[in-house]
Amino acid sequence: MINNLLINFAHEHKKVVPISLFVAVLCLCLVIGHLLEENRWVNESIVAILVGCIAGSILLLVTKGKSSHILTFDEELFFIYLLPPIIFNAGFQVKKKQFFHNFLTIMMFGVIGVFISTSIITGGSWWLFPKLNFLGLSARDYLGEIAIGTIFSSTDTVCTLQVLHQDETPLLYSIVFGEGVVNDATSVVLFNAVQKLDVSRLSGRAFRVLGDFLYLFSSSTALGVLTGLLTAYILKALSFGRHSSVREISLMMLMAYLSYMLAELLELSGILTVFFCGILMSHYAWHNVTEISRITTRHVFATISFIAETFIFLYVGMDALDIEKWRMTKLSSGSLMGIYGCLILLILVGRAAFVFPLSAFANSMMSRRAESGSSITFKHQIIIWWAGLMRGAVSIALAFKQFTFSGVTSDPVNATMITNTIIVVLFTTLVFGFLTKPLIRYMLPHNNGTRRNTNHEAAGTPGEDLNLPLLSFEESAATNISRAKESLSMFIGSPAYTIHHYWRKFDDAYMRPLFGGPHHNRSRC
Amino acid sequence: MINNLLINFAHEHKKVVPISLFVAVLCLCLVIGHLLEENRWVNESIVAILVGCIAGSILLLVTKGKSSHILTFDEELFFIYLLPPIIFNAGFQVKKKQFFHNFLTIMMFGVIGVFISTSIITGGSWWLFPKLNFLGLSARDYLGEIAIGTIFSSTDTVCTLQVLHQDETPLLYSIVFGEGVVNDATSVVLFNAVQKLDVSRLSGRAFRVLGDFLYLFSSSTALGVLTGLLTAYILKALSFGRHSSVREISLMMLMAYLSYMLAELLELSGILTVFFCGILMSHYAWHNVTEISRITTRHVFATISFIAETFIFLYVGMDALDIEKWRMTKLSSGSLMGIYGCLILLILVGRAAFVFPLSAFANSMMSRRAESGSSITFKHQIIIWWAGLMRGAVSIALAFKQFTFSGVTSDPVNATMITNTIIVVLFTTLVFGFLTKPLIRYMLPHNNGTRRNTNHEAAGTPGEDLNLPLLSFEESAATNISRAKESLSMFIGSPAYTIHHYWRKFDDAYMRPLFGGPHHNRSRC
Repeated sequence: MINNLLINFAHEHKKVVPISLFVAVLCLCLVIGHLLEENRWVNESIVAILVGCIAGSILLLVTKGKSSHILTFDEELFFIYLLPPIIFNAGFQVKKKQFFHNFLTIMMFGVIGVFISTSIITGGSWWLFPKLNFLGLSARDYLGEIAIGTIFSSTDTVCTLQVLHQDETPLLYSIVFGEGVVNDATSVVLFNAVQKLDVSRLSGRAFRVLGDFLYLFSSSTALGVLTGLLTAYILKALSFGRHSSVREISLMMLMAYLSYMLAELLELSGILTVFFCGILMSHYAWHNVTEISRITTRHVFATISFIAETFIFLYVGMDALDIEKWRMTKLSSGSLMGIYGCLILLILVGRAAFVFPLSAFANSMMSRRAESGSSITFKHQIIIWWAGLMRGAVSIALAFKQFTFSGVTSDPVNATMITNTIIVVLFTTLVFGFLTKPLIRYMLPHNNGTRRNTNHEAAGTPGEDLNLPLLSFEESAATNISRAKESLSMFIGSPAYTIHHYWRKFDDAYMRPLFGGPHHNRSRC
Repeated sequence: MINNLLINFAHEHKKVVPISLFVAVLCLCLVIGHLLEENRWVNESIVAILVGCIAGSILLLVTKGKSSHILTFDEELFFIYLLPPIIFNAGFQVKKKQFFHNFLTIMMFGVIGVFISTSIITGGSWWLFPKLNFLGLSARDYLGEIAIGTIFSSTDTVCTLQVLHQDETPLLYSIVFGEGVVNDATSVVLFNAVQKLDVSRLSGRAFRVLGDFLYLFSSSTALGVLTGLLTAYILKALSFGRHSSVREISLMMLMAYLSYMLAELLELSGILTVFFCGILMSHYAWHNVTEISRITTRHVFATISFIAETFIFLYVGMDALDIEKWRMTKLSSGSLMGIYGCLILLILVGRAAFVFPLSAFANSMMSRRAESGSSITFKHQIIIWWAGLMRGAVSIALAFKQFTFSGVTSDPVNATMITNTIIVVLFTTLVFGFLTKPLIRYMLPHNNGTRRNTNHEAAGTPGEDLNLPLLSFEESAATNISRAKESLSMFIGSPAYTIHHYWRKFDDAYMRPLFGGPHHNRSRC
């Protein structure tokens, strides 16, 4: 029995040590991030990655290279606990008008763009890797290649939140971030489609893939919308706030998480579901709770998301030093450099190949509109191209899912793919992330100059303006409607506003009375 | 590679299913708990246990008795994730004046009381169990017996939070809850002491045990106080609020959790540490953050604690139906009934044996005081005795730690001990918990009548008065000081007020300028 106790004790401590370490380093990150807030080059994710690297190397020195266990990347932890709050918060805080205004553009980028980018990266690596003496993968199966394409094609939503600011560059933010959300669904579909189909018949069954995508997209969205509406309805019907605001906050948190888990259970895209659940909750459910719950939820979702983001980047930084994997790759450093360079080049080309043509297409679609403000200028296109280049924790998690079994691999080819992913993620996050702020400042000096003084906020954490949630949305909605009524020519010229106008009418007449929220253009229906 | 993916997928889903289930059932609990709010018999924990039992039986029916895996109680989950937020929140929201005013009484109950109760339960079971044909345990080793004593002697803090309300019965709440916090440290010391020492020499080395206890208590408290002060200092010195309130909230959450983990790492009592960390944070750190952060932290700590509590009771309810353990016990139902009855009787006697004598002692100590309000009347004693009888999730977790290896046991004696614990927990929580509300209503009709209408709050979740945090403390402090100045006889008669007075002076002169918080009796030092 004493023995049992001791074993239990050791077993327990195995978790206590890494958790203590991570929490302590997280606190450190927070303080350093705060001190570097004024710095114009560094963002939160770079701080976290660097602190993670330093902590990892200290740990390696202290334990003399043994402690790879603490550093192992656990994709379960990532997909089950860390990702959902980040994406939910993004949906909860997103400026809905901007998002839906650019909905078509976002869908094009997120769907067609990923197809283009995946085929370029897959084809490119198929063609280039054998020339760099990296044979194992392409000789063995095509799945690995497609996997590379998918892994390196998905823009990381978490990184995007870190470099683009909703208040500074709303158009760019909504396009790049929205694309990131949508392309998660595309990746899932591509993965599943490739696994089911013969590669030779893939082209013949493109319609099937498209059908799968439409099914996945619509069912994931529907699930998120339903959960959001259900939450709003429960909160409105039972009016929890009468007794305690704690129950309201709990219910919102739990339902949001439930939507993600249900989507995963039904093999849908949890990211899409929880994103739409967040949008619906901020549109309806949030209006049915007490004032205190409103302030609390708004800030607590932002806080949890912030902690999760920092945690992920720390993890990536520490994981980069897992030397076992580095030892396992049997290639010369020359070939490795070649592979890294080649991958980064392919990512650059793959993204350019869809951002510029699709932007031009989107502009030509929108050319009938009166305002020039909503068209994507060339400068915008460059920033969209650049800001979406970052590959982050999502890529690493996908790579681990694809190339390892529960975080362990014994195959040198797989180990090489893991290290490739880590290098690409570190390089893109550090270098591209580092240059994004200056690039935006250089490309859009006006936009930045007016906002800079009021908006020093940390990435993804709009601080003081959380006091006035959704205000900008309400305001713009009212403006839209008056504008739409103003002239009939506008009405014909801008179909997006028309849809928006009818949606508002429907929302006020049927949805808001049932699910809660303020009325805008009439006092009572 | 496809195979890998599939295995990974199944592996992932193994967690997705139970999490979805738990979250869904949690939401259900929340809604049912809200609907039964007005009911005078039922409390939140009973609802959760019953819902857990029902969900568990439905699950057993659906899976035809196979799904014992979902129902397994994981003591790691409990001690690492669920317990810390509950205890931290208790420290954060506790009325500090009441707590420190009764400090000596609490310490007596928590230390001497546990010793008395443990010896009675240990001795009683040693004497009674063989008569009930339950031989294995007592014949094998004395550790099991002491373990039973400790497991069944510790009042469950979580249960206490559910039946006693800080605002309705502040004296009783602070004594019973404080005792629960302190007796965790006592249990840890007893456990360790017993493992190190020979039982025959235990009596001779009682001073050693006392020394160990004093060391553990003081170092755990010191760690909690230090972490709390450090957090307050960082928040004050760096003024995070200037940039974003998200960082403030994150730092408070992370530091609180870190204090618990560090205590576990250093083999101290994490419960004591995180409790004192909570007290210090609400006293200093909380005053250094922005208004928004204050509202948010106050509610979010309450919310997380609420979710964790509900989760634990659900878990206990579902775990009760883990039929494997029931099959393993080889005793007749008659002997089992005898054992259950005997254990519950011992718990009743063991608690009575220290509550009444120690209360009398505490009263005689305090008899010099002018006010009769602070003495423990006989009615109070009965409620203290009764409300502390509940054994909850902490007992189950300790039993699993002691009698199983990672939740699995193959020994019939150990299995019997686990089922004993589950039965005792269910019985005490349901029956004693059920009767506590009516008992308080019957014993203290006045106290209850005046407060009932204003305080329908869910257990542990003071809702609307969170708006005015610490106000009662500030008020009473000011009252105390004016009262203390009023007459010198009072000053001599009530040493507690004198200590409190000097503490306030010291606090205002040295602590508050350094760590933050408002000044009371002077404008500036």
